[in-house]
Amino acid sequence: MHRIAVIGASGYTGVELLRLLARHPEAELVAVTSRQYAGQSVAEVFPSLRGVFDLIFEDVDPAALAGRVDLVFTAVPHQAAMSMVPDLLAAGCRVVDLSADFRISDAEVYAEWYQEHTAKNLLDEAVYGLPELFREQIPAARLVANPGCYPTSVALALAPLLQKSLIDPATIIIDSKSGTSGAGRAAKVDTLYCEVNEGFKAYGLPRHRHLPEIEQTLSRVAGSDVVVSFSPHLVPATRGILSTCYASLATPLNQEELLSLYQEKYAEEPFVRVLPTGVLPNISQVRGSNYCDIGLVFDPRTNRVIVVSAIDNLVKGAAGQALQNMNLMLGLPEETGLLQSPLFP
Amino acid sequence: MHRIAVIGASGYTGVELLRLLARHPEAELVAVTSRQYAGQSVAEVFPSLRGVFDLIFEDVDPAALAGRVDLVFTAVPHQAAMSMVPDLLAAGCRVVDLSADFRISDAEVYAEWYQEHTAKNLLDEAVYGLPELFREQIPAARLVANPGCYPTSVALALAPLLQKSLIDPATIIIDSKSGTSGAGRAAKVDTLYCEVNEGFKAYGLPRHRHLPEIEQTLSRVAGSDVVVSFSPHLVPATRGILSTCYASLATPLNQEELLSLYQEKYAEEPFVRVLPTGVLPNISQVRGSNYCDIGLVFDPRTNRVIVVSAIDNLVKGAAGQALQNMNLMLGLPEETGLLQSPLFP
Amino acid sequence: MHRIAVIGASGYTGVELLRLLARHPEAELVAVTSRQYAGQSVAEVFPSLRGVFDLIFEDVDPAALAGRVDLVFTAVPHQAAMSMVPDLLAAGCRVVDLSADFRISDAEVYAEWYQEHTAKNLLDEAVYGLPELFREQIPAARLVANPGCYPTSVALALAPLLQKSLIDPATIIIDSKSGTSGAGRAAKVDTLYCEVNEGFKAYGLPRHRHLPEIEQTLSRVAGSDVVVSFSPHLVPATRGILSTCYASLATPLNQEELLSLYQEKYAEEPFVRVLPTGVLPNISQVRGSNYCDIGLVFDPRTNRVIVVSAIDNLVKGAAGQALQNMNLMLGLPEETGLLQSPLFP
Amino acid sequence: MHRIAVIGASGYTGVELLRLLARHPEAELVAVTSRQYAGQSVAEVFPSLRGVFDLIFEDVDPAALAGRVDLVFTAVPHQAAMSMVPDLLAAGCRVVDLSADFRISDAEVYAEWYQEHTAKNLLDEAVYGLPELFREQIPAARLVANPGCYPTSVALALAPLLQKSLIDPATIIIDSKSGTSGAGRAAKVDTLYCEVNEGFKAYGLPRHRHLPEIEQTLSRVAGSDVVVSFSPHLVPATRGILSTCYASLATPLNQEELLSLYQEKYAEEPFVRVLPTGVLPNISQVRGSNYCDIGLVFDPRTNRVIVVSAIDNLVKGAAGQALQNMNLMLGLPEETGLLQSPLFP
Repeated sequence: MHRIAVIGASGYTGVELLRLLARHPEAELVAVTSRQYAGQSVAEVFPSLRGVFDLIFEDVDPAALAGRVDLVFTAVPHQAAMSMVPDLLAAGCRVVDLSADFRISDAEVYAEWYQEHTAKNLLDEAVYGLPELFREQIPAARLVANPGCYPTSVALALAPLLQKSLIDPATIIIDSKSGTSGAGRAAKVDTLYCEVNEGFKAYGLPRHRHLPEIEQTLSRVAGSDVVVSFSPHLVPATRGILSTCYASLATPLNQEELLSLYQEKYAEEPFVRVLPTGVLPNISQVRGSNYCDIGLVFDPRTNRVIVVSAIDNLVKGAAGQALQNMNLMLGLPEETGLLQSPLFP
Repeated sequence: MHRIAVIGASGYTGVELLRLLARHPEAELVAVTSRQYAGQSVAEVFPSLRGVFDLIFEDVDPAALAGRVDLVFTAVPHQAAMSMVPDLLAAGCRVVDLSADFRISDAEVYAEWYQEHTAKNLLDEAVYGLPELFREQIPAARLVANPGCYPTSVALALAPLLQKSLIDPATIIIDSKSGTSGAGRAAKVDTLYCEVNEGFKAYGLPRHRHLPEIEQTLSRVAGSDVVVSFSPHLVPATRGILSTCYASLATPLNQEELLSLYQEKYAEEPFVRVLPTGVLPNISQVRGSNYCDIGLVFDPRTNRVIVVSAIDNLVKGAAGQALQNMNLMLGLPEETGLLQSPLFP
Repeated sequence: MHRIAVIGASGYTGVELLRLLARHPEAELVAVTSRQYAGQSVAEVFPSLRGVFDLIFEDVDPAALAGRVDLVFTAVPHQAAMSMVPDLLAAGCRVVDLSADFRISDAEVYAEWYQEHTAKNLLDEAVYGLPELFREQIPAARLVANPGCYPTSVALALAPLLQKSLIDPATIIIDSKSGTSGAGRAAKVDTLYCEVNEGFKAYGLPRHRHLPEIEQTLSRVAGSDVVVSFSPHLVPATRGILSTCYASLATPLNQEELLSLYQEKYAEEPFVRVLPTGVLPNISQVRGSNYCDIGLVFDPRTNRVIVVSAIDNLVKGAAGQALQNMNLMLGLPEETGLLQSPLFP
Repeated sequence: MHRIAVIGASGYTGVELLRLLARHPEAELVAVTSRQYAGQSVAEVFPSLRGVFDLIFEDVDPAALAGRVDLVFTAVPHQAAMSMVPDLLAAGCRVVDLSADFRISDAEVYAEWYQEHTAKNLLDEAVYGLPELFREQIPAARLVANPGCYPTSVALALAPLLQKSLIDPATIIIDSKSGTSGAGRAAKVDTLYCEVNEGFKAYGLPRHRHLPEIEQTLSRVAGSDVVVSFSPHLVPATRGILSTCYASLATPLNQEELLSLYQEKYAEEPFVRVLPTGVLPNISQVRGSNYCDIGLVFDPRTNRVIVVSAIDNLVKGAAGQALQNMNLMLGLPEETGLLQSPLFP
């Protein structure tokens, strides 16, 4: 059994990590930490997990994990993550960081969109943990930067086209829609039930913080600089991201050829489901699962291809992908503990 | 008092017409018809209106309205509308038709997207009732085609740019999101609560039936043929349409200039609210009202302008706009009976 | 025009007062106050009201309202209300207080459920503003205590039976369900979207703070002490309270006799709708309106009568009833500005 | 591997059975049937299960299952079930029936609430499959009647009190609230998204069809005839039942004694979680799991005990309990395949 800790387990990503770890056959959760809830039991903070874990939340102390833990998930906000990760590595723990702090490899870009980076020396070492596109370096990594939810949904949707230079990158427009759990569990007026319910809005235009990560990933895949429009929206639902991605074809291709491209690209991937022509994804069909569903439509009227992807932002967009990375790091089959079917309805 | 009838009053657009007519000071509802509910009282079919109307649903019979009614709202599906409207006009009623049947002025285009048109002779006479853009002909019209919900949200969002040729029409992409009431009140598995709740999907890609109406309207406004990408999505909310519209600027303009353009264009319009820079619309802020809220963002990184509009699909997108047209046809102040504030939360 | 101020206009009850006042033909809103939002415009804080009011939020200062305002709505939390109301009365304003501070006439009971009362001298003067049951004293009142949302729904449901001693008061059980707006607009984890959505729970058992108000009102109506079980629940919806009230009949009565009793009791009431046998209320049918819908069922198997009432907690349960009281205090027809039909769907 | 079939797999209970069977280590799903979807793949009908099952829906034919299948779940409406079950038993299949047809042991009672029973000879043989209360007969049963969702939530809530005669059965009032998936997947106006969303209502008063099953079970547990009031309500959520049960104590007991009673009763039960004093259940904390959470409150003011239970109606209220029964019938550990943690948020 591999010994696992979750730091910052009191948010939605944290509780989702706990849910998934509860059924993982090769991982034992040995510590959970939370500044806010230190001293309380998991069952008090998360009644859904009563009877599942008997753990008590500890205060956050990387040194205290040395020798007790093999791998740590850091599910804390950016800035907090980069202040802890060096100590966790020093304590001998491998780390999957779910914050944004180690996703952007260029410290200047990070500084432009967030703040000054305080652990720059780790940026080169950190591996971007999107297995379907960058699987090779993950098994040996000490530090994996778990991708953002929006970037995951977008990269899986556009990679097959960009890798083969089939679209004009300058025409890419990404219109994404996220459930409310992506906004976290902090008490804010903006995410109160009555503010979100029966509402729908765009936010963060035109410079949402996931934009540099999206452009970095698409650029790597394309092999050249990609600049995109990215517009996130808030959906009155708890879980799910749907990204509708538009681009003009650079090469003539029809619907069947496009579909074949995606089917081949993802044929061996256990967590990507390419939908047949005429079927488009729905966040309700991936809820609670690690799947990314992808549907595509070619519109000959406009010569645009429209790729729609759906993930559960807390699973493939966060905790599930983190476990996928953990499995790779620990030499386990990648899908271990991750094959729950979606919860529908 | 003007005497009004609603034909097909049993759907969501129908009940919304009744709600608005109930408080209209110059209109008296004298007849409501419904095949399905003939013989039942309004209160039985719509408990929300108990004590508001004492009317009994009649079976549908245009001839029976002759002499009793000055203006009729036809809130029936397309095809049904074009089979009734000639008889209603013959019976001396003026008509505001809320179906798609008289919105498309070219019978061949209509046939391509719907079916053969059976009242072609009325297509020239029918006036497209989007007052903010085409107000002039409405007062004298015998037959007004009330615009679709998506087309209303899109046309108000893009008209100021297209009228002045400030954007490249070939770059227009429209990503729209609609609440579920737009799908109507017919019993279908797809719109059951458990299918829609906690879901989000695109549908009708790439050829939703509102596309020809959108392109017709944008082309009129632009003075040249406009072809667009239009992707509707289903929001797990009852009311509201949010359209996120993308286009590349054809002329250099900054955020302030763009905002001024919109503020000037809509300065005298009682139902269009142009939001200040930094504020974007939310369907929750127009619910139950006839407002169209518009926010805009210029992104210098991509040279794209993003215009976001929000309406209540049942009000400005259907019944409210229909009353706005009725007011114009009857010579009443355009905002009569339409100034309810949005219901928030 | 009567000059009106709303103190504490930044919560959900506050914005609902503004919405209703916007369309009131005899009331002019001349001041809105909010500690939190002082200096901001109404449109900034409540985008739904953009273009409806041009007012700027003032800081709270009762003295500053003297001479400018005839009647004040205090929509602040309990304790804050009793610290302001004496000054407002001293400034010559009449007051409709929407907090709990003047609803409980016995200062000791108030102290037991809330805290020590600091304006005890006003408790005798304060009039309990539930017009359907206690209309007489309202017109002349200087200070009206606007009833709580749960107590309103319960009192209207049970009064006809208690007034005629037709039920055994010791058997009353009240199972109430409230939409989330009743929990207010303060930022709390418990009322975040993701906590409430897809959830349902009981809370505050067995001693919710509305219990003494409920028992006080039922006791007054019954003419003797009434002790009840009251269990509130949280509904994943924004607006609405549904109370399911159980009691054993003390006198043999059948369904028709019970229905007649209610129909007679409320025959002249513009805001109470007694539903026919076989029809039960739904909060969706009163949303946004000042109606209280009541349905009742006699169960001969158990000799129990079950009365179900539905209101919009922000309208008949708060702001609408406050305007109803204002109308009475100002000598206006009671339904002035309050006849909007419910917003369905 | 045990060979399993699901008959009527096209409803919400059916798809939930498939979801749970997908991860069951000892059960192999070999056939799914559906009149409506015969010939279509599971992935076409339920996109959530794409990649999980490759099965094609067969038409319903009990004889065709002989020899292929060890155990059948019948997830069809009442009346349909009793017409198939005899043939399935004749074909050598053991049956867990999820309809109401074999739950009521008295054919006359069944006829009063449903219709004439056409397989009366099986009523004695059928075992009521609520393991926590009636575990003994299940392992050897050929035919298990899987309990209804409401009866499950009520029986687990009240059994500890009734078994020890601690409450007066004549005072029992059950106020239940169910998510919308309980209404099934048939296309009906009443369960459309826009009808349910933002609504809350009671229905089926005072004689909902689950009443005789509730009374039968409570009577068995109590050892004497129990007659109750039972009021179901519809919650605008997909999954979950919360039952609030009221009764007067027949014996003086305080909160601690009551809690101990429940803790002892359910100490060995893997699927019942008795919550500590001060904590009440929420359907959001059991979603997707087979747990029944129970909280209780003693109110000394009224001498009433209030027991609140929460289950997922599709799991512990249907498919999960059906698998629990299957496990018992097949000699497997009762919790096999059923230990998923709840999906929160």
